[in-house]
Amino acid sequence: IKSKLPTTGTTIFTRMSALAAQYDALNLSQGYPDFDPPQALLEAMSRAIKEGNNQYAPMAGLPALREQLAGQLALHRNVNCNPDTEITIVPGATEGIYCSIMASVHSGDEVIVLDPCYDSYAPAIHMAGGRAIHVALQGDSFAPDWAAIEAALSPRSRMIVINSPHNPTGTTWSEADLQTLEKLAQQHNLLVCSDEVYEHLVYDGQQHHSVLQRPGLRERAFAHFSFGKTFSVTGWKTGYCVAPPALTAELRKVHQFVAFVAVTPVQQAIADFLTSDPGYPATLADTYQRRRDLFCHALEPSRFTLRPSQGTYFQLLDYSAISDLPDRQLSEEWTRSPGIASIPVSVFYQRAPRQGLLRFCFAKRDEVLLEAAEMLCKI
Amino acid sequence: IKSKLPTTGTTIFTRMSALAAQYDALNLSQGYPDFDPPQALLEAMSRAIKEGNNQYAPMAGLPALREQLAGQLALHRNVNCNPDTEITIVPGATEGIYCSIMASVHSGDEVIVLDPCYDSYAPAIHMAGGRAIHVALQGDSFAPDWAAIEAALSPRSRMIVINSPHNPTGTTWSEADLQTLEKLAQQHNLLVCSDEVYEHLVYDGQQHHSVLQRPGLRERAFAHFSFGKTFSVTGWKTGYCVAPPALTAELRKVHQFVAFVAVTPVQQAIADFLTSDPGYPATLADTYQRRRDLFCHALEPSRFTLRPSQGTYFQLLDYSAISDLPDRQLSEEWTRSPGIASIPVSVFYQRAPRQGLLRFCFAKRDEVLLEAAEMLCKI
Ligand SMILES: CSCCC(=O)C(=O)O
Ligand SMILES: CSCCC(=O)C(=O)O
Repeated sequence: IKSKLPTTGTTIFTRMSALAAQYDALNLSQGYPDFDPPQALLEAMSRAIKEGNNQYAPMAGLPALREQLAGQLALHRNVNCNPDTEITIVPGATEGIYCSIMASVHSGDEVIVLDPCYDSYAPAIHMAGGRAIHVALQGDSFAPDWAAIEAALSPRSRMIVINSPHNPTGTTWSEADLQTLEKLAQQHNLLVCSDEVYEHLVYDGQQHHSVLQRPGLRERAFAHFSFGKTFSVTGWKTGYCVAPPALTAELRKVHQFVAFVAVTPVQQAIADFLTSDPGYPATLADTYQRRRDLFCHALEPSRFTLRPSQGTYFQLLDYSAISDLPDRQLSEEWTRSPGIASIPVSVFYQRAPRQGLLRFCFAKRDEVLLEAAEMLCKI
Repeated sequence: IKSKLPTTGTTIFTRMSALAAQYDALNLSQGYPDFDPPQALLEAMSRAIKEGNNQYAPMAGLPALREQLAGQLALHRNVNCNPDTEITIVPGATEGIYCSIMASVHSGDEVIVLDPCYDSYAPAIHMAGGRAIHVALQGDSFAPDWAAIEAALSPRSRMIVINSPHNPTGTTWSEADLQTLEKLAQQHNLLVCSDEVYEHLVYDGQQHHSVLQRPGLRERAFAHFSFGKTFSVTGWKTGYCVAPPALTAELRKVHQFVAFVAVTPVQQAIADFLTSDPGYPATLADTYQRRRDLFCHALEPSRFTLRPSQGTYFQLLDYSAISDLPDRQLSEEWTRSPGIASIPVSVFYQRAPRQGLLRFCFAKRDEVLLEAAEMLCKI
């Protein structure tokens, strides 16, 4: 058959995790914790199942969970939102992002994406009938290049996709960045798709800045969040999208035919867990910062240059002092021997400006991080 | 914003279930069991969670589950398939159907759908850039109208969507129907999207006929199945798609960016359950036939005419001897008083040829079915 995505292969996460399994390598490639979520959440899930939460939830999600989330947004971000008309529970942020793009982008529309970017954005834009316009983040800092973004805008520009804390670089946007985006989006009447799945993983005393906190962005944004990231259950595939009522209505129209609903017992379990421990997400920054520091400290004797990781659970290592091989080749080679899997950063670009960066996930147990660092120090 | 689905509202299932809740009505509208799945499946799920199956599964699904499913297809359908290249686990058949359409249908392509049909097909075709060509099933029997289908074909025809056992009518396709489809699909080089989510719910000694059993269909079909239906866990939102390797490859390319993966502990739990009880799905026909017969028998004194339900857990009631109001109006009215919710059948048509049919779900506890029938007998 004629392919809908003729230039797309299997995602890099699937490929590297499969390769890691094949060579029995330490898997620091695909982003997921190798430890379990809080015991209380596991118990809440077992209870949810036993107590009969096994049939369809309402399409927008369980009301009890949406109310908890409105409370969370008030607590952590000082944002008010209506759980009935502005929050939709989705089967993972990937689906939420897909649906927000599909609901907004029409044939011939252009959507700005900032490279390096998560690999689902451009295919989603393409499937919606639109065209992804790739603008690179700035060379060394990965800061948004506002001049280049403005230059890429056209009368067909419908949306911009942003992502902070940023996968794969671990950088975060400042308040000033969001302020500039706000002006630009208003001026050019752009919708904003904001991937904030790592919102609670920000380090060194920073605050996460959400599009929901700026009225000029709030009114035009789909903001996407992930329980998988926040509660260490990536395999439970549940997240949520916050958007103003008119955007939420369009998102739900699409979502109801793409996936219909998210998993009921997961929704009940997270609602119950948040009811008894609403402060839990605020504890994540410290525990992940400790993991980051453990990993980075152990890498000090290595020949890699460490890029600052300000958020997410990813650490970029610059290997240009070691090798000038392309990153895809090197990540495969090192997966085979010495046996450590990473993600090459160039795959997240339409046109990669350089080689030399690999992404490592530090959402791993201490002994795994130390073993990984030891291996990397010998390279 | 400009709507992607300008003529679409909220699905009828969401609306009727909300109305049922509002008026505290018996909810025989949306299709889901009001009883729990087998205890052993609930236990398998709790175990899966406790034993750490909480992070991403491989994109195509857990290998152990895909192997079990290949075994199930051999056991129940005498069909061989390769679990690595032909089976994909999806977060619900709705997502699987959506992705198979999105992967196959290009701008301007036409897709035949047979009305009355499940309400996600046409929006999925529209989102893929295609055009749904609606052909009505035959008036009284709901049998495929082959002459009308042939007449609707054009050089742009890319796919036909079929569904047996059929939602909402409860009819099933015979071997002869599939044989005719096979010839037609081969002649016109059509892909086939086959919704077989009610495969195990067929009554009166019938066998389910799957597209997988006819080589000329097998080679060009996406066949969709649902754990929610088979294991009474609609809220677990997991199913699978079987298609030949080339079609599976395209399906997965789309699926990886629409939802990425299905829920890990659900996959593990179903794999474990099937390992210990591979014959379970074959027991469903008897237990649901008993429910159907209980409901229908209790309706004998009513003024409704019962259409034969040969499969699914739906029973159509013809109310034309009672009222000539439109079915949408009547289903809402009866939800308010006497307090029983159903699904109007006309919503599943592009142009409904008649009024007079309501769909009732009999996947309910005996006392609910009897109470519902008692209410309906008084109408
Ligand atoms: C959805 S796949 C992998 C998880 C992830 O987001 C990543 O590794 O970047
Ligand atoms: C996916 S919503 C409801 C379930 C169903 O398929 C139906 O009621 O027809």
